[in-house]
Amino acid sequence: MGFINENFMLHGKTAERLYHEYAEGLPIIDYHCHLSPKQIAENYQFRNAYDVFLGGDHYKWRLMRAFGIDERHITGDAPEKEKFFRFAEAMPYMIGNPVYHWTHLELKRYFGIDEPLSPKNAEAVWDKVNEMLERDDFRAQALILKSGVEVVCTTDDPADDLHFHESLKDFGAKILPAFRPDKSVGIEKAGWIDYIKNTGAKSYRELTDWLSSRMDYFDRHGCRLSDHGLDGVPYCEGDPASVFEKKMRGDAVTAKEAECFRYSLLSFCAKEYARRGWAMQLHIGALRNNNSVMMKKLGPDTGFDSINDMEVAENLSRLLDGLSSEGSLPKTILYCLNPKDNFVLATMAGNFQESDGVLCKMQFGAGWWYNDQRDGMEKQLRDNAALGLLGGFVGMLTDSRSFVSYPRHEYFRRILCNLIGSWVDNGEYPEDYDALGRIIRGICYENAKKYFGF
Amino acid sequence: MGFINENFMLHGKTAERLYHEYAEGLPIIDYHCHLSPKQIAENYQFRNAYDVFLGGDHYKWRLMRAFGIDERHITGDAPEKEKFFRFAEAMPYMIGNPVYHWTHLELKRYFGIDEPLSPKNAEAVWDKVNEMLERDDFRAQALILKSGVEVVCTTDDPADDLHFHESLKDFGAKILPAFRPDKSVGIEKAGWIDYIKNTGAKSYRELTDWLSSRMDYFDRHGCRLSDHGLDGVPYCEGDPASVFEKKMRGDAVTAKEAECFRYSLLSFCAKEYARRGWAMQLHIGALRNNNSVMMKKLGPDTGFDSINDMEVAENLSRLLDGLSSEGSLPKTILYCLNPKDNFVLATMAGNFQESDGVLCKMQFGAGWWYNDQRDGMEKQLRDNAALGLLGGFVGMLTDSRSFVSYPRHEYFRRILCNLIGSWVDNGEYPEDYDALGRIIRGICYENAKKYFGF
Amino acid sequence: MGFINENFMLHGKTAERLYHEYAEGLPIIDYHCHLSPKQIAENYQFRNAYDVFLGGDHYKWRLMRAFGIDERHITGDAPEKEKFFRFAEAMPYMIGNPVYHWTHLELKRYFGIDEPLSPKNAEAVWDKVNEMLERDDFRAQALILKSGVEVVCTTDDPADDLHFHESLKDFGAKILPAFRPDKSVGIEKAGWIDYIKNTGAKSYRELTDWLSSRMDYFDRHGCRLSDHGLDGVPYCEGDPASVFEKKMRGDAVTAKEAECFRYSLLSFCAKEYARRGWAMQLHIGALRNNNSVMMKKLGPDTGFDSINDMEVAENLSRLLDGLSSEGSLPKTILYCLNPKDNFVLATMAGNFQESDGVLCKMQFGAGWWYNDQRDGMEKQLRDNAALGLLGGFVGMLTDSRSFVSYPRHEYFRRILCNLIGSWVDNGEYPEDYDALGRIIRGICYENAKKYFGF
Repeated sequence: MGFINENFMLHGKTAERLYHEYAEGLPIIDYHCHLSPKQIAENYQFRNAYDVFLGGDHYKWRLMRAFGIDERHITGDAPEKEKFFRFAEAMPYMIGNPVYHWTHLELKRYFGIDEPLSPKNAEAVWDKVNEMLERDDFRAQALILKSGVEVVCTTDDPADDLHFHESLKDFGAKILPAFRPDKSVGIEKAGWIDYIKNTGAKSYRELTDWLSSRMDYFDRHGCRLSDHGLDGVPYCEGDPASVFEKKMRGDAVTAKEAECFRYSLLSFCAKEYARRGWAMQLHIGALRNNNSVMMKKLGPDTGFDSINDMEVAENLSRLLDGLSSEGSLPKTILYCLNPKDNFVLATMAGNFQESDGVLCKMQFGAGWWYNDQRDGMEKQLRDNAALGLLGGFVGMLTDSRSFVSYPRHEYFRRILCNLIGSWVDNGEYPEDYDALGRIIRGICYENAKKYFGF
Repeated sequence: MGFINENFMLHGKTAERLYHEYAEGLPIIDYHCHLSPKQIAENYQFRNAYDVFLGGDHYKWRLMRAFGIDERHITGDAPEKEKFFRFAEAMPYMIGNPVYHWTHLELKRYFGIDEPLSPKNAEAVWDKVNEMLERDDFRAQALILKSGVEVVCTTDDPADDLHFHESLKDFGAKILPAFRPDKSVGIEKAGWIDYIKNTGAKSYRELTDWLSSRMDYFDRHGCRLSDHGLDGVPYCEGDPASVFEKKMRGDAVTAKEAECFRYSLLSFCAKEYARRGWAMQLHIGALRNNNSVMMKKLGPDTGFDSINDMEVAENLSRLLDGLSSEGSLPKTILYCLNPKDNFVLATMAGNFQESDGVLCKMQFGAGWWYNDQRDGMEKQLRDNAALGLLGGFVGMLTDSRSFVSYPRHEYFRRILCNLIGSWVDNGEYPEDYDALGRIIRGICYENAKKYFGF
Repeated sequence: MGFINENFMLHGKTAERLYHEYAEGLPIIDYHCHLSPKQIAENYQFRNAYDVFLGGDHYKWRLMRAFGIDERHITGDAPEKEKFFRFAEAMPYMIGNPVYHWTHLELKRYFGIDEPLSPKNAEAVWDKVNEMLERDDFRAQALILKSGVEVVCTTDDPADDLHFHESLKDFGAKILPAFRPDKSVGIEKAGWIDYIKNTGAKSYRELTDWLSSRMDYFDRHGCRLSDHGLDGVPYCEGDPASVFEKKMRGDAVTAKEAECFRYSLLSFCAKEYARRGWAMQLHIGALRNNNSVMMKKLGPDTGFDSINDMEVAENLSRLLDGLSSEGSLPKTILYCLNPKDNFVLATMAGNFQESDGVLCKMQFGAGWWYNDQRDGMEKQLRDNAALGLLGGFVGMLTDSRSFVSYPRHEYFRRILCNLIGSWVDNGEYPEDYDALGRIIRGICYENAKKYFGF
């Protein structure tokens, strides 16, 4: 088997058939990502190979730092060609890392480059990629369309006026907003007071009213899902209104009070999502901004986040049960960053599968961030299957800031087909291509389409 | 390889030989389950395929709920035939779930049905199963006997008078009680006061006396092991007698006081087990009754339990060390529900292997509940081997409420033989069938027989 | 494939080629172990097979206890031949345990014994091994040299005068000290006051001065790395000087005060390591001395330690960030004993990869102790690759008290070559033996040599 050939990740005839006949050609629904609506709307043209592969990709920056490359050649003011060359130099050492596979899939699928990137061919790759990036069919929108993408959900602040989304109404792929109110919820974060002042809210009630009206606005723009980054799961009954006032007055708010506030506002949002038929995503377990020196230098989301290991089960249970008890638990996707939580989340989802005709109303989400790699994705699929109903899974998303990250869907589909193919080969599932095809099509495309209602 | 054929789960000649020549024909010792002694004693006859496959099986109910089936067609008042049909409809989506394998093994081994269950054959399966269930050789006792079961240990409350066990004395398989005093220990649970009143105990001392006398009674009925469900591991020195009084007076008991009480009573029981040569099972890490709405509707054990993630190592260490220091640590089996605890429990067992001639006095228990599936069972075996003495393992149990769940022993034996066979094929263990046969027979049958003293 | 043949653990031609052509012949750098400098300096001669295989090896003792062997035949006063025979009796039951593989690799590589150890050949093995141990080329130094060891780092207390290391200056392999100040840091442990009195330190400042001067002394003896056993990760700002005084006065010190002291002294040491260009090893997550009865009888490090499960992420983040903020974070290797922490540690390392020209300044350490087995080592490699830069990994160490434990490096290299070979076979990495050879040589030898500066 050659390097990333047509049967990459597919071991056995069944896996090959499932992938090539069922999964490969399906459209992509990328229901969670961090693409810039502005870049899509303005149909951004990439300057060069650095810009398209490395600009904003903190996964790659981390590996470059590990290789000992100075920051100037990563995010600093070194010429972009030099940065790309340093990346090429580190590349062979990234063996076994998803970035190794992603980069080569990106080179192959978009630029027709089959050779492994290394210092030997960095110059040739740099030239070839740059040349192609000058063409109109390598601008942002074309990259989305040629990737077979049907729907993209960006991640947007409630305060966003969505004018980029509006200007995109007649674009070939649907670009929809998703609602992420983390800045309203995060009362303990720097900048919260300023953010709230900008919303105009003078009380907790006014804040919830504002959020509710923003949801209506997002909903009119096609929003079908929300997203919350929960570093830990809050649960604490209390009076959020008085915590709001205290904080706005400039008084200190205790950790407990902040948790009460976050819990209350999250619950409020969840009920509002339920009312609108939206799905709620909960991303649980990041430990962010670990390196203060680099935080000061580069700001957040630049490659200094990692994984927390606090307990999550009891609070998550109470949070979901509170909503369920009031009949207002929305469709929910639970993602964990720490794979020790896979079993907790996958079985917690099973506690709240209300029998209301939705296929897997509660979802154990796809391998997130550090789990978005071969072993992590396979583990998520195996755990999902062992502990729940894999056939109802809404599948993959890129969670990416990059316009060439769609091969991650290909990567996922190959891993999925390989896993299911191996079960068939081992006699653990019958070789019934009707049933298998339904499952593959469901997980790769149809389940998400129905679940979110696109 | 066809679907669930004779070499199901067996990859390679060594695995096949180990299974077919050594494991397959051994009797079953099912040392922990939740069969109803009443149903055994009365030689229960199943109404139909719903009754035998789905009645009381919350594993299957959870998957049906995930499929979006309404509760009426799961546990509600819909006709049982309709419920079975809805189950058949969800079946193909259960790919990779142990229920998929269990159900088909059950259909095959008991009813000679080889086809995968689906809406296409649901009618035929319904008819065939129902027809067979009318025969006397498909009543409860016959199902146990034809499964090759030698010993069944039910799970019984100390207050139980064991009259069903008594009436079964001349039954072909031994049906023994096991002692589960959770209702005495769980002082923080609703119903504790009423339970204690029924025992007649007016003080902590009278409660321990009562438990002790019930152990004698159980012992006379062949009881050889006990069982405790420890959602978290209690450790807290204190005066249990005053906590008992406080609670019985109707006063509020703090979380700490309740933990003291649970710790003291658990320790008391453990010492009494040690004195009688009983084994103690500790089931650690469930998070129960997460869904209050369904709890009110259906009660406990109906599919709304999942996995907790609290710390367990230090308290478990102190609990076992306290017993060991007094020379009264019984044979103990440690089960975890959260697989993050596998390494903690397997190595904790190794700290207390007292050198007194018992093979693996301290056991890391078989994959429990959500771990009772292909990957979870293989992980338990691998971790057990890597961290302890796999050759001394007491092996599998069903933990089941179902009379057709014995193929789980077959499933376990296949996974065990496959794992050990792969080690032999890889040159990691010599192809010495004397030694291999001893290990396989030990884990599948003989170790349990000796360990419990059946 | 026969039992432990030349392609043991190597599945496929690529794995075989990587091992035999690249890894097999490389020298060993054993940068962390617990060999006795005295035994090396005095060129210790082993009494017999018990002495060389079982003397001091608590991994083996634990398995013997699990087999039900009485303590007299493990660590007690039974004749050593009898002890060895009991070990041989238990051996076949150790299937799947690393001790099974290690023992047979030891028998094969040092004594030319190919047969699996069992009661059948225990007498012959005992005789053959004992005969060979009488030869000069089986004394301590010869065992090190014939294992291909280039550098050994022992683990030494700062108070040690290193006279054994000095007397070894012209020995064929470099035997270097490593700095482990646990006795200074562990203010909550019995014996701390006496230890501090012996250093002569009368204040916190004098203690840090003393440690600093001892680092200079160790540095002059070639020390390049340190080691801290952190059962939990301390983080607590406070005044260590007053805690020092309080404790020395004989007053009780609270858990919080002790944590402040440990945190401060650990930070002090780390800064001093950074200044000297030393690497710092942090061993996180042991739960020691669980069995008080055996602790009283045999003392520490005799097989009664296991794994803790506390949270580590937040404190570790703060500890490393504190050092990084002051520009004094040394090269650091993070080891976890609980594999649930693999993802936390591997990603935490990535937060502090300062871009200063060192290849992987922050390391996720090799599978430690209970993880030092086939599955644990493979998991560490997979996690390291998925979450970081595997090509920069400093590789394996024995962490052992035994002079015949070097086959653990062979075991590691085989597992490494097999894993990487499988990736090549699967088309996940190109069949480029230049790149592959660089990676293998790096991980097995060159990375450590450069990283530590030997």
